[in-house]
Amino acid sequence: MKHILNFVHRTVSTAVKNYSRFVSVLETKNRFHLSLSYCCIRKYSWGFNKNKSLKAAKSRHLAMTDPAIEAQLAPLRQAVKEQGDIVKQLKANGAVDIDIQRAVSELKHRKKALEDKAPKDNFDRLRMEDLLKQRFFFDQSFAIYGGVNGLYDFGPMGCAMKANLLQAWRKHFILEEQMLEVDTAMLTPEPVLRASGHVERFQDYMVKDLKTGECFRADHLIEATFEKLLDDKKTPEELKEKIRKLLPTIDGMSKDDMGRTLREFNMKSPITGNDLTDPIEFNLMFATSIGPTGQIKGYLRPETAQGIFVNFKRLLEFNQGKLPFAAAQIGNSFRNEISPRSGLIRVREFTMAEIEHFCDPSDKDHPRFANVADLVLTFYSGCNQMDGKPPEKRTIGEAVKSKLVANETLGYFMARIQLFMVKVGVDPDRLRFRQHLSNEMAHYACDCWDAECKTSYGWVECVGCADRSCYDLTQHAKATNVKLVAERPLPAPISFIGIQCILSLTVNHKTVDVIECLPQKGALGKAFKQNAKVIVDHLTNLAAEEVAAVEQAITDKGSADVQVNGTNFSITKDMVQVKRYQKTLHVEEFVPSVIEPSFGVGRIMYAIFEHNFKTREGDEQRTYLSLPAVIAPYKCSVLPLSQNADFMPLVQKLSTALTGRDISHKVDNSSGSIGRRYARTDQIAIPYGITVDFDSLKEPHTATLRERETMKQIRASVTELPDIVKDLADGRRTWEDVLNNYPLFEQQEATK
Amino acid sequence: MKHILNFVHRTVSTAVKNYSRFVSVLETKNRFHLSLSYCCIRKYSWGFNKNKSLKAAKSRHLAMTDPAIEAQLAPLRQAVKEQGDIVKQLKANGAVDIDIQRAVSELKHRKKALEDKAPKDNFDRLRMEDLLKQRFFFDQSFAIYGGVNGLYDFGPMGCAMKANLLQAWRKHFILEEQMLEVDTAMLTPEPVLRASGHVERFQDYMVKDLKTGECFRADHLIEATFEKLLDDKKTPEELKEKIRKLLPTIDGMSKDDMGRTLREFNMKSPITGNDLTDPIEFNLMFATSIGPTGQIKGYLRPETAQGIFVNFKRLLEFNQGKLPFAAAQIGNSFRNEISPRSGLIRVREFTMAEIEHFCDPSDKDHPRFANVADLVLTFYSGCNQMDGKPPEKRTIGEAVKSKLVANETLGYFMARIQLFMVKVGVDPDRLRFRQHLSNEMAHYACDCWDAECKTSYGWVECVGCADRSCYDLTQHAKATNVKLVAERPLPAPISFIGIQCILSLTVNHKTVDVIECLPQKGALGKAFKQNAKVIVDHLTNLAAEEVAAVEQAITDKGSADVQVNGTNFSITKDMVQVKRYQKTLHVEEFVPSVIEPSFGVGRIMYAIFEHNFKTREGDEQRTYLSLPAVIAPYKCSVLPLSQNADFMPLVQKLSTALTGRDISHKVDNSSGSIGRRYARTDQIAIPYGITVDFDSLKEPHTATLRERETMKQIRASVTELPDIVKDLADGRRTWEDVLNNYPLFEQQEATK
Repeated sequence: MKHILNFVHRTVSTAVKNYSRFVSVLETKNRFHLSLSYCCIRKYSWGFNKNKSLKAAKSRHLAMTDPAIEAQLAPLRQAVKEQGDIVKQLKANGAVDIDIQRAVSELKHRKKALEDKAPKDNFDRLRMEDLLKQRFFFDQSFAIYGGVNGLYDFGPMGCAMKANLLQAWRKHFILEEQMLEVDTAMLTPEPVLRASGHVERFQDYMVKDLKTGECFRADHLIEATFEKLLDDKKTPEELKEKIRKLLPTIDGMSKDDMGRTLREFNMKSPITGNDLTDPIEFNLMFATSIGPTGQIKGYLRPETAQGIFVNFKRLLEFNQGKLPFAAAQIGNSFRNEISPRSGLIRVREFTMAEIEHFCDPSDKDHPRFANVADLVLTFYSGCNQMDGKPPEKRTIGEAVKSKLVANETLGYFMARIQLFMVKVGVDPDRLRFRQHLSNEMAHYACDCWDAECKTSYGWVECVGCADRSCYDLTQHAKATNVKLVAERPLPAPISFIGIQCILSLTVNHKTVDVIECLPQKGALGKAFKQNAKVIVDHLTNLAAEEVAAVEQAITDKGSADVQVNGTNFSITKDMVQVKRYQKTLHVEEFVPSVIEPSFGVGRIMYAIFEHNFKTREGDEQRTYLSLPAVIAPYKCSVLPLSQNADFMPLVQKLSTALTGRDISHKVDNSSGSIGRRYARTDQIAIPYGITVDFDSLKEPHTATLRERETMKQIRASVTELPDIVKDLADGRRTWEDVLNNYPLFEQQEATK
Repeated sequence: MKHILNFVHRTVSTAVKNYSRFVSVLETKNRFHLSLSYCCIRKYSWGFNKNKSLKAAKSRHLAMTDPAIEAQLAPLRQAVKEQGDIVKQLKANGAVDIDIQRAVSELKHRKKALEDKAPKDNFDRLRMEDLLKQRFFFDQSFAIYGGVNGLYDFGPMGCAMKANLLQAWRKHFILEEQMLEVDTAMLTPEPVLRASGHVERFQDYMVKDLKTGECFRADHLIEATFEKLLDDKKTPEELKEKIRKLLPTIDGMSKDDMGRTLREFNMKSPITGNDLTDPIEFNLMFATSIGPTGQIKGYLRPETAQGIFVNFKRLLEFNQGKLPFAAAQIGNSFRNEISPRSGLIRVREFTMAEIEHFCDPSDKDHPRFANVADLVLTFYSGCNQMDGKPPEKRTIGEAVKSKLVANETLGYFMARIQLFMVKVGVDPDRLRFRQHLSNEMAHYACDCWDAECKTSYGWVECVGCADRSCYDLTQHAKATNVKLVAERPLPAPISFIGIQCILSLTVNHKTVDVIECLPQKGALGKAFKQNAKVIVDHLTNLAAEEVAAVEQAITDKGSADVQVNGTNFSITKDMVQVKRYQKTLHVEEFVPSVIEPSFGVGRIMYAIFEHNFKTREGDEQRTYLSLPAVIAPYKCSVLPLSQNADFMPLVQKLSTALTGRDISHKVDNSSGSIGRRYARTDQIAIPYGITVDFDSLKEPHTATLRERETMKQIRASVTELPDIVKDLADGRRTWEDVLNNYPLFEQQEATK
């Protein structure tokens, strides 16, 4: 296995070099796909293909602050804007699809030109990856078996960081917002994912290399081939013209259209040049079979959200029937990506943290919105994207007031997301909220903003924040015949509102006519035996007009035909009783709206790595990670100055005291100068380091405390130090405050 | 779907009643199976079938303390002992298998007689399950879709409790023992699980009902049918005799044997009486396919341990090459049980927490063993099981000294397991360590003890603690050709030990002859092109005698045939250079031993539920959960005495102060008497409750604090209370201490 995989890897590597240009086109596309895919594809995979034209806007869209650069970009921005206006105009005029698509295709090319001019980052990703591998933050899974693409293992440092990140998330969202956390099954039976739309629409078309079996996404392959032909000077102009016409139609191509196009242009595998199969539907979910009979088809969940929706009734009950409430879940999801790349960003198994906030669709205000209204966020609105304008900063309060953000609850969560991201180490200057464009959103969503982090892969979607309206609950209710609703008191007639508010105890009500079908179990059981139960259920759940129809048929013909699970049953007068009465209602039922912030934990971790990978000034070789204490794998190191045995009792004493305070720490009594050991602790992001030196041996015992960013040291008593570190690590005390209160220890690291 | 499942459920329910006796036999078997399966089946599933005779010892083995009961049981114990001696004698004499099996069969019957006489528990499981459902600790997954057996969702209370349990586990093991935590992929490619033995041996034989498709474990079905026939007075004596002879052979039956037996006795489905298929192998892993090509066959991991083993090299490096060290992992595993029952105990998806402690096989002492040596554990040794004796209490120090427990490291972990279990709420009187019998263990394991908790399902294995020797690392090294070894300094010659200890700097060494094959890449590349790489790898990894053979062949015939991946390649003189030299070694390599404590999180939670489900004295209706604060979902409640608006500012202030201290809490300002609300908080195990009453409104503001177990209340100032609760919840302060320092609040709950 290992040999084979190694071999395949080698072969592919060589081929990749040969076809590098071509593949780089493919890769750029994949990158786009991935930057949207992790939390959107569920809702948008079917709408997704329609929006390729807009993806270019996302890649490598750097923060535009340098005026010289801005001057260069201005004409390109203008060109984008002009074309964007044309697209808008065509849409407003209801132009035919092909015209819109052609205009969108041009818009896409202009955006690409703009993007290509944007300044490139010089981030040394390879160097950072080396550090992360070497210190075992994460690495490829099953590497001794040759590895599997898209699967990663977190080592001790990555795992501790991840656990700390999730703990911070729990505190920031679940504890502070009193959310209801759940932990639901990953194995999911097919009907659940059929109702959610995943079985039918969570798929791509792919083609296979007939000889090697390697797979490519059909639409990406066609597009890449077309672009290559367009760029090729040898391509005859008439062919180019034809391609230009076809290019904008790719996204709407059926399976057959794609097959035809592949054959017409005689497309081959970009890696081997071998022939390809016809396009094949490929669902991105991992399928399996639950139970020994093979009768229960199941999938590994592609997101954690559905586990919350199917528990809605229980959760509402748990919350004593009251809305709004939010449920949350942290857990793994699985997506069988066709060709995973880009490290932690596009993987086949990943941890998500999702929140489903259920609220009354007629009231999306948030009681704590005022607490965050003044927070400044970077908004990359749909309009700015269409106009080629850069993102803009403003307060979330203004954004909601001006209707840029649809409602307070959505805005509240965006603000809370920003606070969380910055707390765990995301650079606020490399964080923006990008609005989904209207045709990027699923038809049922009202508004959707992605928190994107700038990385060397471009802007990567790390958190999605969508108003999903009542789509999911409605779908599951339809599929199960179980009502997934909440209740609210009937609203007062408008003219009375003034009075009703004053006499606030007045309960509103309305009277409705009810027609109900009461199945007669005895007669049904006699007639239909083992089928009786499903027929009873069916009759009980008939809508008013269906009951009337059954009644009518019995009156007219003596019996009514009822279809249950594809079989017809003849219902006679003795089998049902129809009851009519009036009912006074004080409440009305409604399907709640859902606002969903959805976090990709691996992507956030990756962004944090890039944003915190640093080099010591004056020493290019000395790289380190400046993770905030809250997520640092260890909070503290304990280092004896040398391996002198006299230091060990104090080191042990400090270690025990730190453990007693639940402070994760690392004792490094290996050989190597103290400076080298500091450098090593810097590489695993340890924010604080206690060193036991010769002065420590004198009574009262003291030791030095060093902070990673400033590299400054103070000296304090051994009994005090654990509490100082605890307060620093928990954010109850700043390093500046410590510096002001304890004597500076002046010895330089380099001299040690 | 829902209708169909409901219907199936109903049909089965009826059938189950009709066949209840029969099924209860089957279920008893399943119960045994489950009580062993979660962490043992990996290692023991293949050895497992051989040990049915011993399973009876596990079920409902209650703590035997009542002398009257003991008197009743004495003759039965004696009968077990006598037969146990016979079995031992036969084994010692190397008797033929069939004789041993027959004796074991008799031993089994005697054990069953002993077990049937043991006092039964009157635990009201249904009532507890009602509470857990109603308060949404956990419930069946996808219930609105009809549910899937063996899958459970944790609601807000269960999820918080689980998160707290895992956090406590992390603290107790990972932080306090400085373990290396990892988080590895659940999707696992087949070669990994082939090497571990799971692909071939993690399976059962099953038969299917030809009409309904329902599945049964073949061996369970045969055994249950046999026992039914033996109990039936109408069965002719000669048939009984035949069955008695066959009974002990079941465990060793091949697929064909089982098929023959099923046909000979004309066995039918116990549920429907329909015909059955021949036995079918059924692997308990969930299979899936990784990547779009379908070429990478994979499984959902059946345990988390393999993810640690395949990372051994990285972990050893991370630990700077030093042994011993322990790696740990918390994560989900999956087992496609044929017929899951028994709630959280036997499920298809479950969370495990596993530790792999790697150490030098020649030194299994533990540096901190002295810290736990005096801890008293309940040991149910293999000998006592064979002799029909009850478990015994002694210190772990004595147990290791007397060699009852194989070594200090194993003993250290058993003690730490006990400390953990009691900390999180397991009743120490319902916790015992049961030793695996020699034929219950995999051949490579040295010793294995299960921490078992007594529940209404019998004694359930919650933690396995095994010395797995070097099995797993050896298997993966074989499968990958990657050395999975550690190094140790060469030992000094024995006669020098005394001196060497004194002159401890002396480095030992030995000189070895090395013969090495240096592939000539140029020549190989020219001759074999794309195959060259694998041939180079192959030649580089040849063992000394293989290199010599290649050299000899080239000398003799001019070329040597080398087989790589099933193809022969002819190697000539120009393609390899053979190098011989002497090497001085200061270290020697060895494959580390692994000691593995493996925790079934769901099972531990279930045991905790049963051990903490209580009723208030004098009020049978008032049930509650007495979970320790460390795992209680909420640490505190905040209750206004009534819905009077004046209370709310203080309630809000307290809530904010608690959040500021990371204390999870619940504000319950719903209507209902304070007593009723206390009862409600008791049901979700909230240990502390703050109530704001009319006296609270006077300055300085005070409120009452109530403790769940004693139901006593004190009054303290509103500013002090959050810190008091924090100290109580973190275990830094006892309730007794609080009672002694604050005025008791005397008003009785009942009067409110």
